Amino acid sequence: MKLKSLSLLLMLTLSSTSALAVTCPPNAGELPSWANSDRRSAITEFVTEITNPNSPNFVATKDRIAVFDNDGTLWSEQPMYYQLVFTLEQIKGLASKHPEWKTQTPFKWVLEDDVESLMKADHYALLELLQATHSGLTVEAFQQIVHSWVTKSKHQRFDRSYIDMTYQPMKEMLSYLKANGFTNYIVSGGGSDFMRAWTEQAYGIPAENVIGSSFGYDVVKVGADTVIVKNGELVSNNDKQEKVANIQRVIGKKPILAVGNSDGDHAMLQWSTSQNNPSMAMIVHHTDSDREWQYDRDSSIGRLDKALNESKQKDNWHLIDMKNDWCTVYGASSTSK
Amino acid sequence: MKLKSLSLLLMLTLSSTSALAVTCPPNAGELPSWANSDRRSAITEFVTEITNPNSPNFVATKDRIAVFDNDGTLWSEQPMYYQLVFTLEQIKGLASKHPEWKTQTPFKWVLEDDVESLMKADHYALLELLQATHSGLTVEAFQQIVHSWVTKSKHQRFDRSYIDMTYQPMKEMLSYLKANGFTNYIVSGGGSDFMRAWTEQAYGIPAENVIGSSFGYDVVKVGADTVIVKNGELVSNNDKQEKVANIQRVIGKKPILAVGNSDGDHAMLQWSTSQNNPSMAMIVHHTDSDREWQYDRDSSIGRLDKALNESKQKDNWHLIDMKNDWCTVYGASSTSK
Repeated sequence: MKLKSLSLLLMLTLSSTSALAVTCPPNAGELPSWANSDRRSAITEFVTEITNPNSPNFVATKDRIAVFDNDGTLWSEQPMYYQLVFTLEQIKGLASKHPEWKTQTPFKWVLEDDVESLMKADHYALLELLQATHSGLTVEAFQQIVHSWVTKSKHQRFDRSYIDMTYQPMKEMLSYLKANGFTNYIVSGGGSDFMRAWTEQAYGIPAENVIGSSFGYDVVKVGADTVIVKNGELVSNNDKQEKVANIQRVIGKKPILAVGNSDGDHAMLQWSTSQNNPSMAMIVHHTDSDREWQYDRDSSIGRLDKALNESKQKDNWHLIDMKNDWCTVYGASSTSK
Repeated sequence: MKLKSLSLLLMLTLSSTSALAVTCPPNAGELPSWANSDRRSAITEFVTEITNPNSPNFVATKDRIAVFDNDGTLWSEQPMYYQLVFTLEQIKGLASKHPEWKTQTPFKWVLEDDVESLMKADHYALLELLQATHSGLTVEAFQQIVHSWVTKSKHQRFDRSYIDMTYQPMKEMLSYLKANGFTNYIVSGGGSDFMRAWTEQAYGIPAENVIGSSFGYDVVKVGADTVIVKNGELVSNNDKQEKVANIQRVIGKKPILAVGNSDGDHAMLQWSTSQNNPSMAMIVHHTDSDREWQYDRDSSIGRLDKALNESKQKDNWHLIDMKNDWCTVYGASSTSK
């Protein structure tokens, strides 16, 4: 399968650095997978400050809103977004029912493992693949398929199920925030229905706190029942400025903490830190080619360029150095038992 | 002002019935404004059943989702939707800055109190009025205007501020549900930004639990800050099937309790009661021309026809008879102090 060679190529083009990983500090409290660093302190100091009722920076519980990108921020995204991997694997699984796909692009490319053509294809080709695999069924039926895939299908490089490609330090951060009265939201380019199938299990984030891209819904009568069937109309591509608009639309409040990893999160970080309340932005910087991946300005997936520049100019923007700030990247496998 | 005569006309066309209101029962517990009736029992029995961990009908807290329409369900909607009253009053207030409106429909009709032309106008005319008053400013600035209006401007018939046109029995129901682990959402044709300016104060429902119609947002840089400016593009008209789609899109869970008052809520009631979990639908039936209004099948506002028929065929659909089930309609004024 050519996906493997693409992954290999990506790794070779990145500079290979020392494998000496940072060790986890003893008595690390609520954030045991975070090395002692300015980023760890930034998180605990921010939380301590805004939860202190005697501080001028106190923020009421109802306004403790934190937003997190998902791909590259809460789980990995290389060598390609995992929802895209899901889509390609679904196409292959459905191919026997669609003999016409053998000669029809972009399906043909998928079936022939022609990664090069797929990568060069425009977004209409991607949309067509998504429509073929994400529509024409109820939300419940779709989510059963996704849940099965995310817990059973395995990432080739790490031989872990995709739900185990989530970052242990970020899960600890989510728990720590929740324990301190925050409401955590995912705000991702991934599909809402796709993510909701597993985000509660992986992160403790329930469906109503997941804001993603979305296709349309048809509300139809089936016998005496009313059901929702997913259709292929793109309703929202939740990226860049659209993330800001969707946070306002769904939550109606401005977050005081925003965490992302790419320029797709830049507007969300800028908007969240444009306020009189204390606020903070964090960026997961992929600096660890051994334990995860190393990429930023030149990556086609998760490109981090303008937000990287801005993070260096602002006191309340923090760049998480994965290689040196995280003593653990992935936690114990949850699905191999 | 002709609005008054319209209101008078509406009242005269409705049959005037006895003014003998039902008395509030002693020891009414959490629902003191509800007379003893099958509807009061339906609420308390449903809540008792689904919160009983020993019952086969037990529903976990995270799935105790209740959805409420707003206009005609949580506050009155006669003689016209109050967001429309707001819009017309805003047009008049802005008229001195827009001399062109004197000759330009639909603005001209508003300035001349030509209610007849306004009522006959198509939805594009309404959209134009909404765009002129609901866009071109930040969400925060818009909500300040709305909050001031809803707490200060008065409804002519009752000489009460609009925020006091909210129903006391429904506020008690919301509190009772919340105390029993429910999360209450508003799902209304009213605008999200409009409602969020006052729903927490009136109902204890925070911004993130308000799902309404929406215009688009422009995310723009103003100096070093990133701000959201409301634009006039209609993103969602939250009515009928669209209510179902938006509940799925925002909450991602099916409610177990849905409350409405018109055929605009019919799909939401049908979908919420299409499930294996115990579920219930309620309809506020406007039967009290003395203390509120009396209307159903023939009303252009809040028409209740098909859902009224269905409520009579289903055991878990309950028709709230405002005249006989509510011993109080509006609570003490909150704004006249």
